[in-house]
Amino acid sequence: MKLSKRIEAVRQRFLDKETDAVLVNSPHNKFYLGGLFSSSGYLLITKANQYMLVDGRYYEEVQQNNKLFQVELLGGPNTLAERLNSVVAAEGLKQIGFEGRELSYDAYRSLQERIRCRFYSLDLAKIRSIKETAEIETIQTACTMADAAFRHILGYIEAGMSEKTVENELVRFLKEQGGQKDAFDSIVASGVRGALPHGKATDKIIQKGELVTLDFGVIYQHYCSDITRTLAVGRCPEELVRVYAAVKAAGEAAMERAKPGLTLGELDSFARNLIRENGYGDYFGHNLGHGLGIQVHEYPAVAPGNAQRLEEGMVITIEPGIYLPQVGGVRIEEDVLITRGGCRPLTRSSRDLIVI
Amino acid sequence: MKLSKRIEAVRQRFLDKETDAVLVNSPHNKFYLGGLFSSSGYLLITKANQYMLVDGRYYEEVQQNNKLFQVELLGGPNTLAERLNSVVAAEGLKQIGFEGRELSYDAYRSLQERIRCRFYSLDLAKIRSIKETAEIETIQTACTMADAAFRHILGYIEAGMSEKTVENELVRFLKEQGGQKDAFDSIVASGVRGALPHGKATDKIIQKGELVTLDFGVIYQHYCSDITRTLAVGRCPEELVRVYAAVKAAGEAAMERAKPGLTLGELDSFARNLIRENGYGDYFGHNLGHGLGIQVHEYPAVAPGNAQRLEEGMVITIEPGIYLPQVGGVRIEEDVLITRGGCRPLTRSSRDLIVI
Repeated sequence: MKLSKRIEAVRQRFLDKETDAVLVNSPHNKFYLGGLFSSSGYLLITKANQYMLVDGRYYEEVQQNNKLFQVELLGGPNTLAERLNSVVAAEGLKQIGFEGRELSYDAYRSLQERIRCRFYSLDLAKIRSIKETAEIETIQTACTMADAAFRHILGYIEAGMSEKTVENELVRFLKEQGGQKDAFDSIVASGVRGALPHGKATDKIIQKGELVTLDFGVIYQHYCSDITRTLAVGRCPEELVRVYAAVKAAGEAAMERAKPGLTLGELDSFARNLIRENGYGDYFGHNLGHGLGIQVHEYPAVAPGNAQRLEEGMVITIEPGIYLPQVGGVRIEEDVLITRGGCRPLTRSSRDLIVI
Repeated sequence: MKLSKRIEAVRQRFLDKETDAVLVNSPHNKFYLGGLFSSSGYLLITKANQYMLVDGRYYEEVQQNNKLFQVELLGGPNTLAERLNSVVAAEGLKQIGFEGRELSYDAYRSLQERIRCRFYSLDLAKIRSIKETAEIETIQTACTMADAAFRHILGYIEAGMSEKTVENELVRFLKEQGGQKDAFDSIVASGVRGALPHGKATDKIIQKGELVTLDFGVIYQHYCSDITRTLAVGRCPEELVRVYAAVKAAGEAAMERAKPGLTLGELDSFARNLIRENGYGDYFGHNLGHGLGIQVHEYPAVAPGNAQRLEEGMVITIEPGIYLPQVGGVRIEEDVLITRGGCRPLTRSSRDLIVI
């Protein structure tokens, strides 16, 4: 992690004649730029300096481990406003950019009222979109753990088991492999529940003849993986086998075409059109995918009409799905790295319909 | 859960001549008022109606399970602004209150620009502070699970084991008991790491002669528990035994005095003064506790100077700690229910120093 390079990139991109500093409050950007992962605390990047403002719970740790930032203690009389005002005065700041999507309205208003400076909403989401080599390796490790967990669960899952039991085993296995924690609440959706794209694991018992959609991921060294597979417990209805084939073909069509220069909307439409041609156009109601990294959902959205272009070094998910109300559903999700000439899957579990 | 009563309470408290409606976006308040637990989606409570606005991922589920709310589909041309504007027009709304601490600045600005209505920041935090009987029972179950996990870990933990291994076993056990998930990333801080109040579990190996602070909790049916115990692995330094006694005495003094009518600041000071009298006043740098419920940290803060008063039915934590830099630390945390004449602990693990 070259934090100083990342900080310099933020300066280049956001500081100009108007804006003298950027205030960072989101945990993921504080980690990306400062190595600090906490819900509280702030980074302030000015033209000349960078500051880390933390309370007593983090001060000792941060003082020891960090040479890049000037560390300021928050707490008691040292309010955020007081600390910021002293930097504003010392460096003559006129306008501070802040993360408008991440800072609450009340926190914004409190800064605006107390600090002798203008405030301006900006969006740092894109700073993390092109992954560095070390980041890609970390995401690859998280993806390999997810693949291992899927392989493990194939030998574990059986009819008569609750969805919750399967989820618990997934999470236990991922942590045992060295994962920090699950990247999000796992989806284990069996039978008709497969028609719910967000069907978190419940006490429902998995029955023979049902499809089961598993959507899970792990955080490894602060980076996420996110994989979905749908498997069959015994023989399942013919219609769902056709649905499975349509989903698989849609995802693979998108993966074949993904490459730098293509817009995210075009990528989405390759999969979406194929699902429509197969007669299931009304049953794919979400985006094709999303960026993946420190956050499990991050910039960019692989969404209809998104005119932003794929770039080498982006990591995105490709996850078409078909959901038939009262019947069931299928989703298959890969994490892929955009390479110079195409894309490379980071998740590598089989995409064939596995019957157990 | 009597959602209709809770909604009516919000109407009584927040709707008046000025404010015609409340917009709810925080997951915990959407769950409390609408039974909906999701990061996206909104509730709108007007004088005459209540609306639930969700996208396609939740629409089917919500339509089926909910009779109280008028459900509106978001997505495509049905933007939040379009839907809200139609309610604003139909009901003649002039001013909508929103959760200023929960809505981002950008989301606020987008509403302000698009919706023909004034917006006004309000704070719903207090609506959940007095727990209903069923809520108390659910929190009690979550606390009993945490107690069971502590008992279990006493037979599991030993010198030579990493903090991470202990955390993984805690989480596995809690989920096996029927807990949804850990309420937060468990703290397992051994030896000198005990001086870090937020010492998340690491790969550090637990050594003989160290204290280990375990701070963990579980979510059960959307309600949290949050317990801390510090145990000794073999005989530990005399100074830390004295520290342990001071922390225990401080927590117990606060529990003896907690009752309706006392201010939260007074409660904090009972523990804080005792720690100061024992010579450790400089080493207790955080609040004595916090409210507990759907969120692991919620209103009220048991903090120095807080003039709000304890009320019957509040559930709070009492968690004094002493942290000696480079030496180690002790924290003991109970979850307690404020009763008519005092308080009742919901966590019931022994507070004696256990040596294993």
